[in-house]
Amino acid sequence: MGDPVDVDVRMRGFRQRMEVARARELILERCRRLDAELVPLRAAHGRVLAEDIVAARPVPAFRRAAMDGYAVRAEETFGASAYNPILLELVGESLPGMPYGRSLASGQAVRIMTGAPVPDGADAVVMAEYAREQDGKVAIYEPVPPKKHVSEPGEDIKAGERVLAAGRRLRPQDVGVLSSLGIARVPVVRKPRVRIVVTGNELLPAGSTPTDYRIVDANSVILEGLIARDGAEAEMAGIVPDRREEIARALSEPGADVILVTGGTSVGREDHAPLIVAEQGQLLVHGIAMRPSSPTGFGVVGEVLVFLLPGNPVSCLAAYDLLAGPAIRRLGGRSPELPHERRRAPLARKISSVLGRLDYVRVQLTEQGVVPLATSGASILTSAVKADGFVLVPPNSEGWSAGTEVEVFLYD
Amino acid sequence: MGDPVDVDVRMRGFRQRMEVARARELILERCRRLDAELVPLRAAHGRVLAEDIVAARPVPAFRRAAMDGYAVRAEETFGASAYNPILLELVGESLPGMPYGRSLASGQAVRIMTGAPVPDGADAVVMAEYAREQDGKVAIYEPVPPKKHVSEPGEDIKAGERVLAAGRRLRPQDVGVLSSLGIARVPVVRKPRVRIVVTGNELLPAGSTPTDYRIVDANSVILEGLIARDGAEAEMAGIVPDRREEIARALSEPGADVILVTGGTSVGREDHAPLIVAEQGQLLVHGIAMRPSSPTGFGVVGEVLVFLLPGNPVSCLAAYDLLAGPAIRRLGGRSPELPHERRRAPLARKISSVLGRLDYVRVQLTEQGVVPLATSGASILTSAVKADGFVLVPPNSEGWSAGTEVEVFLYD
Repeated sequence: MGDPVDVDVRMRGFRQRMEVARARELILERCRRLDAELVPLRAAHGRVLAEDIVAARPVPAFRRAAMDGYAVRAEETFGASAYNPILLELVGESLPGMPYGRSLASGQAVRIMTGAPVPDGADAVVMAEYAREQDGKVAIYEPVPPKKHVSEPGEDIKAGERVLAAGRRLRPQDVGVLSSLGIARVPVVRKPRVRIVVTGNELLPAGSTPTDYRIVDANSVILEGLIARDGAEAEMAGIVPDRREEIARALSEPGADVILVTGGTSVGREDHAPLIVAEQGQLLVHGIAMRPSSPTGFGVVGEVLVFLLPGNPVSCLAAYDLLAGPAIRRLGGRSPELPHERRRAPLARKISSVLGRLDYVRVQLTEQGVVPLATSGASILTSAVKADGFVLVPPNSEGWSAGTEVEVFLYD
Repeated sequence: MGDPVDVDVRMRGFRQRMEVARARELILERCRRLDAELVPLRAAHGRVLAEDIVAARPVPAFRRAAMDGYAVRAEETFGASAYNPILLELVGESLPGMPYGRSLASGQAVRIMTGAPVPDGADAVVMAEYAREQDGKVAIYEPVPPKKHVSEPGEDIKAGERVLAAGRRLRPQDVGVLSSLGIARVPVVRKPRVRIVVTGNELLPAGSTPTDYRIVDANSVILEGLIARDGAEAEMAGIVPDRREEIARALSEPGADVILVTGGTSVGREDHAPLIVAEQGQLLVHGIAMRPSSPTGFGVVGEVLVFLLPGNPVSCLAAYDLLAGPAIRRLGGRSPELPHERRRAPLARKISSVLGRLDYVRVQLTEQGVVPLATSGASILTSAVKADGFVLVPPNSEGWSAGTEVEVFLYD
């Protein structure tokens, strides 16, 4: 092959491609965690805590039974056995939410259920299995030491204790503990608002039937799924005609923290977005050393982060995962690292790459190991559909031979 | 300790506890995948496909350029070089969605963008890098073989090809490919409707401030998070007083596929739910050989699966994950297996268990290995909050010594 020659400026490729790691660094430098907002408890699942949660009161807040049985004075059970039960007077019961209203006197017992308040004067609970009621009395067949089966106030959580730390992504049990503490509204990091701008005169909106030479937009659909996965809110700006003023308007409309612009399938002369970003703000990345996805860009317009994603669906997916995703996750208080589950397995076939370029290789996990799928044709969306995940060949590697153990990022 | 003695029937413990594996089997026998429903494309993310998806048309549907450049007759470029370019007449352009309307004649070239239709008469695309326009002509500096940079119809997907199989949980790129195929409504498995019935006179609804001897419900909040994780829809029946007729009504109200009943914190005399299930349907499981969570039950009332979950939050969480979760996931078309990411690591401290019982042990993952947290006190919700995940000690094991490699199910 001869050397590439100069071409019409509108169609030239990227002559200089930035390393992905450097682009990622430039991007993450611009990302700060968004502000907090208060959401109702039940809406807090999966959200990121914006502040430490400190218990205003202890849990439990009162002495409570940890077993079904009888509240007693422990010392009065000493010496009890199956052959020599000790008889106590059964004076009442304590149920959850319905305490025995008085103090326990000497020689008395109160029937008690798990979670019910232990009456004053009692200091232990005899399990129901070791007692039997008869004629207004209860026979105790086992001695119990003081404090047995009694949960002390603060046993689980002490007042003033930090229960959950800022930055925690709330799991079901975390929201449960917030509920126990009486918290009704939870301070969480606001969800990043991500506008999706799809350009391309050949595109029909998702849900359409393709006709003649027009194809149906897949990128906005893919991006919506990824944005939701990353805890952000997608806003569809619709399909914007490849006209300068239309794209400029979609970029300048207020309300977004991040804008993702994806081309039709073209990265050539119809590519207005990079010029607009450069004019209205700063175009910091344009062209990355990655395959696929080299025509990826990043810039800022005011406070808004703008990503220029390739029009090819697989390139769009890969560029999102490696560059836009980290930014969106960090804005939302999550880790910028890839959220995929990882698995290590040996390569069933070699992967070739070139020095200086990051390769995003779709793979299948089979019994024979990790099988790379055809890497040519970034438009082959089915390669990502057929794949179980991807491996990343770093720029300092020319690839790996069969048998090399690699790390697979699983799509699921 | 003496032998347990008989106790009041209302308060007796479970004398016979079913093995968890057997209970799980009985439960899963009752679970069939729910019917299909059609949802709009954009609502299909994460849903389970109910039917195979077969392509009605090929993708691409027309011959399209895979590169920016010039559509040519390949044979006319043979012999071209940087020193000896071949000149072709530039007769027009083909853009995505805007084809060059005519056939390419001998000696002609058409400027073409990635994704644009390749004109009849042309059979290859010369990359823009290897061509230069001048004076209505284009100089070609590299020969191309026929079909170069031309995607043939059906290259990605052939008409009639099965693109996605029933049972697939749809990933972002899967929904993207459905969009490309022109599918507007997607047949997915209906989401299981799961009613949460919380009983307990001591309970205040989530979002309340605890007062005196009343505590705030955490279980319904935890269950809501778990149900959403498992792809089902939660319906809150509210906090139902511990009265037979109230609980019976909450169980008989139509509309649910699954009902989860969770006690206040009691499993004793106030426990109406098992009796109601036994009377109105079949109580198939009552008491399982598991720690925590032994007071777990399962039955069917009509077509509805009813789970009786312990009132203690951690027990409730564990019983959901091991018994209710598998059923809900299978109804929704997912795998009944635990959805948690798994990691293998050595135990930093020993875990003791007893034969015949499954232990659900909350653990932390530290640099020293897997650290089991206190397993006593199922009500200690913070143990599940502090934990990174859990390990399961099977019934045939008395536990493991420090250093044993174990599988941790991660909560996140």
